[in-house]
Amino acid sequence: MLYGGDYNPEQWPDQVQLQDVELMRRARVNLATVGVFAWSRLEPAPGRFEFGWLDTVLDRLAAQGISVALATPTASPPPWFSLAHPEALPVTADGVRLSHGSRDTYCVSAPAYRSAALRIATALAERYRDHPALALWHVHNEYGTTCHCDLTAEAFRRWLRERHGSLEALNDAWTTTFWSQEYSDWAQIRPPRATQYLPNPAQVLDFRRFTSDELLAAYREQREVLKAATPGVPVTTNFVLGGWVPVDHARWAREVDLVAIDHYPSDPGLEAEVEAAFAADRARGWARHSPGAPAWLLMETAPNLIYTGGRMHTKEPGRMARQSLAAIARGSSGALFFQWRAPRGGAELFHSALVPHAGPDSRVFREAVALGEQLERIAEAAEGVVVEANVAVSCDEPSAWALQAPGLPSDRLDHHDEARRAHRALWRRGIVADVIGTLERLSAYRMIVLPGHFLLSDAQAGGLGDWVAAGGRLVAGFLSGVADEHGRVRLGGYPGALRELLGVRVEEFHPLGPEERVTLTSGTGDLWSETVHLEGAEAVLSYLDGGPAVTRHKVGRGEAWYVSTRLDEPDLEKLLGEIAGGAAGLPPGVEAVRRRAGERSWLFLLNHTADDHDVPATGLDLLTGRRVNGSLGLRAGSAAVVRE
Amino acid sequence: MLYGGDYNPEQWPDQVQLQDVELMRRARVNLATVGVFAWSRLEPAPGRFEFGWLDTVLDRLAAQGISVALATPTASPPPWFSLAHPEALPVTADGVRLSHGSRDTYCVSAPAYRSAALRIATALAERYRDHPALALWHVHNEYGTTCHCDLTAEAFRRWLRERHGSLEALNDAWTTTFWSQEYSDWAQIRPPRATQYLPNPAQVLDFRRFTSDELLAAYREQREVLKAATPGVPVTTNFVLGGWVPVDHARWAREVDLVAIDHYPSDPGLEAEVEAAFAADRARGWARHSPGAPAWLLMETAPNLIYTGGRMHTKEPGRMARQSLAAIARGSSGALFFQWRAPRGGAELFHSALVPHAGPDSRVFREAVALGEQLERIAEAAEGVVVEANVAVSCDEPSAWALQAPGLPSDRLDHHDEARRAHRALWRRGIVADVIGTLERLSAYRMIVLPGHFLLSDAQAGGLGDWVAAGGRLVAGFLSGVADEHGRVRLGGYPGALRELLGVRVEEFHPLGPEERVTLTSGTGDLWSETVHLEGAEAVLSYLDGGPAVTRHKVGRGEAWYVSTRLDEPDLEKLLGEIAGGAAGLPPGVEAVRRRAGERSWLFLLNHTADDHDVPATGLDLLTGRRVNGSLGLRAGSAAVVRE
Amino acid sequence: MLYGGDYNPEQWPDQVQLQDVELMRRARVNLATVGVFAWSRLEPAPGRFEFGWLDTVLDRLAAQGISVALATPTASPPPWFSLAHPEALPVTADGVRLSHGSRDTYCVSAPAYRSAALRIATALAERYRDHPALALWHVHNEYGTTCHCDLTAEAFRRWLRERHGSLEALNDAWTTTFWSQEYSDWAQIRPPRATQYLPNPAQVLDFRRFTSDELLAAYREQREVLKAATPGVPVTTNFVLGGWVPVDHARWAREVDLVAIDHYPSDPGLEAEVEAAFAADRARGWARHSPGAPAWLLMETAPNLIYTGGRMHTKEPGRMARQSLAAIARGSSGALFFQWRAPRGGAELFHSALVPHAGPDSRVFREAVALGEQLERIAEAAEGVVVEANVAVSCDEPSAWALQAPGLPSDRLDHHDEARRAHRALWRRGIVADVIGTLERLSAYRMIVLPGHFLLSDAQAGGLGDWVAAGGRLVAGFLSGVADEHGRVRLGGYPGALRELLGVRVEEFHPLGPEERVTLTSGTGDLWSETVHLEGAEAVLSYLDGGPAVTRHKVGRGEAWYVSTRLDEPDLEKLLGEIAGGAAGLPPGVEAVRRRAGERSWLFLLNHTADDHDVPATGLDLLTGRRVNGSLGLRAGSAAVVRE
Repeated sequence: MLYGGDYNPEQWPDQVQLQDVELMRRARVNLATVGVFAWSRLEPAPGRFEFGWLDTVLDRLAAQGISVALATPTASPPPWFSLAHPEALPVTADGVRLSHGSRDTYCVSAPAYRSAALRIATALAERYRDHPALALWHVHNEYGTTCHCDLTAEAFRRWLRERHGSLEALNDAWTTTFWSQEYSDWAQIRPPRATQYLPNPAQVLDFRRFTSDELLAAYREQREVLKAATPGVPVTTNFVLGGWVPVDHARWAREVDLVAIDHYPSDPGLEAEVEAAFAADRARGWARHSPGAPAWLLMETAPNLIYTGGRMHTKEPGRMARQSLAAIARGSSGALFFQWRAPRGGAELFHSALVPHAGPDSRVFREAVALGEQLERIAEAAEGVVVEANVAVSCDEPSAWALQAPGLPSDRLDHHDEARRAHRALWRRGIVADVIGTLERLSAYRMIVLPGHFLLSDAQAGGLGDWVAAGGRLVAGFLSGVADEHGRVRLGGYPGALRELLGVRVEEFHPLGPEERVTLTSGTGDLWSETVHLEGAEAVLSYLDGGPAVTRHKVGRGEAWYVSTRLDEPDLEKLLGEIAGGAAGLPPGVEAVRRRAGERSWLFLLNHTADDHDVPATGLDLLTGRRVNGSLGLRAGSAAVVRE
Repeated sequence: MLYGGDYNPEQWPDQVQLQDVELMRRARVNLATVGVFAWSRLEPAPGRFEFGWLDTVLDRLAAQGISVALATPTASPPPWFSLAHPEALPVTADGVRLSHGSRDTYCVSAPAYRSAALRIATALAERYRDHPALALWHVHNEYGTTCHCDLTAEAFRRWLRERHGSLEALNDAWTTTFWSQEYSDWAQIRPPRATQYLPNPAQVLDFRRFTSDELLAAYREQREVLKAATPGVPVTTNFVLGGWVPVDHARWAREVDLVAIDHYPSDPGLEAEVEAAFAADRARGWARHSPGAPAWLLMETAPNLIYTGGRMHTKEPGRMARQSLAAIARGSSGALFFQWRAPRGGAELFHSALVPHAGPDSRVFREAVALGEQLERIAEAAEGVVVEANVAVSCDEPSAWALQAPGLPSDRLDHHDEARRAHRALWRRGIVADVIGTLERLSAYRMIVLPGHFLLSDAQAGGLGDWVAAGGRLVAGFLSGVADEHGRVRLGGYPGALRELLGVRVEEFHPLGPEERVTLTSGTGDLWSETVHLEGAEAVLSYLDGGPAVTRHKVGRGEAWYVSTRLDEPDLEKLLGEIAGGAAGLPPGVEAVRRRAGERSWLFLLNHTADDHDVPATGLDLLTGRRVNGSLGLRAGSAAVVRE
Repeated sequence: MLYGGDYNPEQWPDQVQLQDVELMRRARVNLATVGVFAWSRLEPAPGRFEFGWLDTVLDRLAAQGISVALATPTASPPPWFSLAHPEALPVTADGVRLSHGSRDTYCVSAPAYRSAALRIATALAERYRDHPALALWHVHNEYGTTCHCDLTAEAFRRWLRERHGSLEALNDAWTTTFWSQEYSDWAQIRPPRATQYLPNPAQVLDFRRFTSDELLAAYREQREVLKAATPGVPVTTNFVLGGWVPVDHARWAREVDLVAIDHYPSDPGLEAEVEAAFAADRARGWARHSPGAPAWLLMETAPNLIYTGGRMHTKEPGRMARQSLAAIARGSSGALFFQWRAPRGGAELFHSALVPHAGPDSRVFREAVALGEQLERIAEAAEGVVVEANVAVSCDEPSAWALQAPGLPSDRLDHHDEARRAHRALWRRGIVADVIGTLERLSAYRMIVLPGHFLLSDAQAGGLGDWVAAGGRLVAGFLSGVADEHGRVRLGGYPGALRELLGVRVEEFHPLGPEERVTLTSGTGDLWSETVHLEGAEAVLSYLDGGPAVTRHKVGRGEAWYVSTRLDEPDLEKLLGEIAGGAAGLPPGVEAVRRRAGERSWLFLLNHTADDHDVPATGLDLLTGRRVNGSLGLRAGSAAVVRE
């Protein structure tokens, strides 16, 4: 089990660095992420490298048996770079050229940036290719900077040529006959910058796709350099999660040796555990397409804080360990934290750390030591990487982006939120689901939920049809399949791409106001309702006016369900639970997740509640060393890992 | 009766266009607005025109007897134009040069834009001057783009020279002695751009007047070209309504052959009907100064949606027809919709249409067909264009702009809102009022309400005085007449321009906080209160401390009332009703409006409520063909048109 | 007693100016501030001066015995200046170059601005050096414009060289190892402009310090010119109060001959009086370091309005006089108002004035006359400038700025607010406190409150320690002393700089959500709580979990208290009252403040409530001329000034 986190020795004098290694030893840390923001220290002037200090750091870590995830520092170019290359500073949609003074302030399409990034990555690869501490390459940090400059415009046009082939195809895909936007020359095309009124949503959607692909191209360049130097060392980058992130990680997963995510829950209560489970299940869903599958890694989380509602919430004693085990239960290869030691200054000076400002004589560091011991005790579970999941919830980045456009029937549509609602309903039911970012290899699942999967290509719709006919249970939420991959509405009745499969025809949408609700024959909904006509399906729940609300269509050996409103959470849980069949039967707030390796299995039990609970389990609790026979008493806030 | 709407054949393949004409025939559409956003299709490269497709469209429509409102497409320049003329892209007050990517993205002061607009308008005029379908020229679309660029600055200075004659006069009008702003050279003057603190309100006010006049000049240029080619075809442009619109439509009404408005109510409930009545009565008020008077035209409204609170509200069955009849009742020459067919893509892809995404097999299209039949049945009422209104509410765009300045006694002052409150009170009382944008030809009215008419010139004040002396009943709300036409406060006691006429002297304003109310001897008010001294008037209602709140001054044969607080709506309704005398006596939510043609009259009855009502009427109900004798049973949500 | 206010004769024709002088005489005005925004009138073209009109104004005032505070008009450059020197217009952090059109629109680092300002100041000094009316130089107005342009960047770099000496020291102070921000050349440093993510808080803090010092340098230049011409005439500038102001007035106080403040309370109720008392006590605290100490001057306040919640609140009858006496009670040398006469136009056309729009026949002007009489009656109290205060509340601008950074444990931290809470608690207790902007000359006090004094240098902490050991009572609020002067956290446990003095070690912060509260053994708190370990101190109040919340550490002859949460106001009042000892015992809302001159003293009694109260007093009430023997009946809303 990997254990450790981000380590920034460049911020500290030597005696503190020496103490760091000693404290890491005490905490049983085995992986330190080094160099993420060290560019200005590693290359203080263009092409002049100073590796001596890093040599010392890596040697000391290696001497203690601590491995290193060595970062390329390209997320934060040094001041000398920005001064020399103002054209490589990003520009907002309003035309504001940003200034140096933070991190992430670069234009990924600027040749100067790309070559400077490759130079430092190459130098690092050559310097440390044979260092015994080197275990993993950590490229960049949280790719996610959007730029609207003219260099970006050029790159965007190149990408569009590639994607659409011809201007005719682009004009068609973007519906440029609307508002007189037909392009007669590629040179006329711009990123979506500030304009007088509503932008073209297809242009915005393609620009987000482009940004993701352009960032990916920059990652790939670095990866090639690193792979060339160290073919045996895995390469990854840490995915950052958030609705604002202009990256489609499902496409990236194929390109990293190990899917690694940063995750910071935002709710101080139980919802944080649900958020974390969603993030973990998403990472696992992405990891299906990664060479490192099925493993993934929680690369960053905060040891002792949840940032929520404008303030830092202290994690309660024991919560850090329980959340770490929860991530491992769902497939993480360990628990890494941002960060090892709290900084004295800088923009994040109060960000939590395993060694806080108060120093090692602190609850947090004592918990870090205890966690290190626990992870050693459950080390054998590292073999069990397969998590049982035969249910999937789709979470499709392009659909999420398309639903962020203005001018939609409701401005409260949020694909991520709908996906999280579906996932939460299953979580409460005790059902472990993969959250999948592409509609591929569907046969792994017996049930798939499509929550507001607005964009569906013909191929995707066809794949879903085949899978249902072969026995799958599809639950499509409203707006799924309404548009094609370019965001064009499919005509003749909603939801065009799935109409036949679902056996319904939706004539009209009726979005609801913030206070409005609709009552069904059983349960209630909000946000949305529709006029649904049955064309083969049967109504399972109806609106009070008699119109179908939730329908089922038997197709081949499977079933295609349609949900035309946003069901209240208990109603959604009931519906999805019934379609999935079975339920864990655990008390609310208690999780049970199993990792497997062939015949062997480890049952992770996590009690997120403030009460003690008895839960069914049989085997050896690795954390306590006690045998368990049918029932395990799980104390409030505690966890168990039972070798079955 | 005109019936139809915006039609964008350029978005559709030929077979859809063929279906369109067939469906229009079924719906009895007789007017289609064509070409509004077709510039990139009509002129795909500078000076290269492609009219073939439009010839086909117009020929087909003509063949079906459908007339065309042919638009000049100048509201949305094509990409090639913006690429060639970046100086013709608008600039915000912050200096952001906007980009192509939406509609309305042009600087009206840019010579390149003006000449390109004239070129396409001229080409259209020459091509279609003799086409049998051509019934109306529709110039541009919803003029309303403000720009702050240097070309605009030049035009602004030219306009200011014209308006003020000399720098001395401008310095005086703008009170530039305040904050050291005296101009010593015209070149020093700029549009009001982002500045360090509060702008000069007189500069802002003149810039809004300038913007309106500059847009008007662009309209006039196109009109002249069209008139030269087709002297007999009326020319208009569609006015867009909204507090943000930088256009004083009262000045424009003189320049259009037919006042045409676009109106989209924003409340899902009964208030939408009041909004629509206000818009109609405003259009009729403007139309008094138009060559086409007294007719006006509802050029755009949404068939099946009200955009409200961030989401689209579906219009209830029958509401589209009832709202169409309500507009016609108040003088519209018909009912035109945006739009004929819902688009597949683009920024407004979910905007409602007579032919929705679901196609003609839909409630909406069936209602469109039914409405076409109804309009044929009431065709004779097209002759009756005069609507009875001897009460007026003034709504003065410059006053509204002036009250949007920062630094006023309250930041919740809103002239449009005050005008709407007064109009709503009369509407509830069953009194049909004109909403007038200039204080001219007052003798048409026996009562005029001035709600927060902040700016009053000496001439305007004098005209009101003469009209009162001759028997008019004036009801002036607080802040009316406080400032002159340049926004300078008239000294010696408020409201300077009307002090003598009203027989009061206001010593102090006492704006109220959001939760505060004042109690009067009868009724209550909020937002505002004052210290009022009687100087000839008598107190009709008083504040609890004894000071006058509502006063009446008998002058000659008339009365001048003053209302120094914002009366609650029932109190305002009571007061205005009593001053106006008489009331329709209809149930709340039921409208009765009469169109006349000489001796003939048609009574429009509209039941906006969810209950059936019996209403007094005698004649022939054209919609049902039934005779009505003294009382008509009006079903919930229905309408009747009675030939009296 | 000084009495008068801002007077802008340049806005008025001659006959109004003649009336002004007559009305000033009636109101017993003795000081008029002239010329604040008259640059465009004084210098209508570069280097061409027109002083004739100002000669007339000053002569007339002098003839009436009215003195003049003559302003340099440099806060509002005329249009010709901005047209000629666009580089002297300020630039926002987003890079927007602002335009002329308001006031305060200049870049203080632009050489063109600095030399133009000196030219007009020099011309005024030479013209009026011997004028009999000249009593005070009023430099500029409310210094406070921030700029981010390249000229500013140069000046910022010069200031940084001066402050830090070397790039190494700067890199260390700014913790630039964080996020790869190490500077290798001064040229790389910029003002904090728009950047991709969180800025470096040390850069932001230094930029605010720089802005304050750069503005101060501009003030000093003008002062030198004026002093050279008129060595005997005091020079000042009016400090503007507000959280947004980029000026550390504590540093400025040393440079003005008389601390002068502008103060506009923002609450319509009793809180306005507390705000005013805080402002007065702050001015007095600053004045300790001014040559004119201990006097200070209320240079601007509004006669008849409080701007609150988006609207103007009329001051109740008598309130203007009572508030004036309240300021004088706390040490003001008089009562000056913005402004003498309400303007006809301009951005502040409804700002209140002693002569309102309604003219002299008005309540406000009658109150102005009455106030003039009252001030004459209490003229002798002008001698008593020392106000009794042996308690101090610190209010440290750099700490306030540092706590405005993003990324802190809570986004609701506000040093000014904490200082105001402490001051309010003392005010309610009847304890007069100085509000001090530097931790100097502490021996004047027996008790000092440090509310969230985030930044503490070693020297400051040492000074506090010495003072406590010598008998002082320190009450440190949470976050005080956590960081050094560069905002770097002091390690090993909070609050580093004061840990030993307070005898506590804080291990963790626990910020609270908006609705959260903590219960103590007595009382409650919100916003913040901590894990506090006792290291010498004793717990006076504890959290419910037993941890110390409020502690006391006896050190030498003094006591060092620590308050680790935000106590509710009654609890804070109780705590501070008990530590301070004694209390006035007056009814809530009644103030008693004493001015002294050696043995003589004057007791100011102010009844801000709506009830009559008997208050203890003995002597002669100068306002009524009545003898007072032990008890004075103070009518609701009234004031008394008792010569003791």
